[in-house]
Amino acid sequence: MSEFNPGLPSARLLQEFIKNKQEIELKLLTDDLLLGKLLWQDDDCVCLVGQYEQQTLVWRQAIAYLKPKA
Amino acid sequence: MSEFNPGLPSARLLQEFIKNKQEIELKLLTDDLLLGKLLWQDDDCVCLVGQYEQQTLVWRQAIAYLKPKA
Amino acid sequence: MSEFNPGLPSARLLQEFIKNKQEIELKLLTDDLLLGKLLWQDDDCVCLVGQYEQQTLVWRQAIAYLKPKA
Amino acid sequence: MSEFNPGLPSARLLQEFIKNKQEIELKLLTDDLLLGKLLWQDDDCVCLVGQYEQQTLVWRQAIAYLKPKA
Amino acid sequence: MSEFNPGLPSARLLQEFIKNKQEIELKLLTDDLLLGKLLWQDDDCVCLVGQYEQQTLVWRQAIAYLKPKA
Amino acid sequence: MSEFNPGLPSARLLQEFIKNKQEIELKLLTDDLLLGKLLWQDDDCVCLVGQYEQQTLVWRQAIAYLKPKA
Repeated sequence: MSEFNPGLPSARLLQEFIKNKQEIELKLLTDDLLLGKLLWQDDDCVCLVGQYEQQTLVWRQAIAYLKPKA
Repeated sequence: MSEFNPGLPSARLLQEFIKNKQEIELKLLTDDLLLGKLLWQDDDCVCLVGQYEQQTLVWRQAIAYLKPKA
Repeated sequence: MSEFNPGLPSARLLQEFIKNKQEIELKLLTDDLLLGKLLWQDDDCVCLVGQYEQQTLVWRQAIAYLKPKA
Repeated sequence: MSEFNPGLPSARLLQEFIKNKQEIELKLLTDDLLLGKLLWQDDDCVCLVGQYEQQTLVWRQAIAYLKPKA
Repeated sequence: MSEFNPGLPSARLLQEFIKNKQEIELKLLTDDLLLGKLLWQDDDCVCLVGQYEQQTLVWRQAIAYLKPKA
Repeated sequence: MSEFNPGLPSARLLQEFIKNKQEIELKLLTDDLLLGKLLWQDDDCVCLVGQYEQQTLVWRQAIAYLKPKA
């Protein structure tokens, strides 16, 4: 994976999801499906807030796909 | 993976699929098979539009193969 | 994955977990779920202390997500 | 993975398979086994032509092994 | 993964296991659990000596975690 | 993975296996176990000769471990 570049369309889309507190589904390479809202992103991770305000640090290397909750 | 280079045959083929709104199948390393049309690509991701115009951000690191829908 | 940068929010959050001896859950790409406290982190690994003070060296490349124990 | 280098023995062997329209088996990290002929290779992908002339773009990152069809 | 740096705490801990002929458990991303003693490490691999003095070359890319045998 | 360096102990051990036509077992991240002799190695791949002299090109990225056949 190339280095994190906040100007990329994908990074900006995540930034928009963060700003809009968009409910998302995050599918991992482990096949885990995480639900929640994105709190922030950095070079290595995205931080997901799920139920009960619990924060989960998800490594980018483990992400398969991400989409707004249906 | 080497850095994304839009001049590569593979990137240009994706660009053609985007332009032609080609229906594709995207097989992920999770074994998920996603169907839809490509909307755009950047260094880290491709954006897939599926049924009901829902957008899915797919990380390149998670892609196994991609082909036009049979 | 970009090179380890201790100034990133994700690295600082881990550092906070280390300082606070926070009980965490660490989900790996193998689907293993490890429980314990973080002892230290470096570029390649995090060191987890589990039951009976046993230390486990976990490679960053294998981490899917990490969260405070519920 | 180091950057793609067309002068490497492995890249040259693929080039030979392309030239000879060699039937090959391509085993992916997803455990998929693809059959067909190689059409071209670039830094990120190989392009496989299977039955009915359908083209499949296979990411190098997803390849486990490749061999001439038995 | 960043380049191998023998000065890192994780590399030094492996070096200590090598020196002390520490029995270890090595969990791989394949879910294999290997048992033995570390003989040496280099940038790409660690060398594990198991039963009957058989040597196994384990790629770092495949390591999930490592711990002293319980 | 760092770039291939033929001077590393692991690369030299493979070179020795090549020279000695050592029967080896190659475990892949797909969980495939390949048997045969190493014919050559380059930056991206190792070439394995199995039964009936068939050559298999194995990507380094897919290797979990390698050992002399028991």
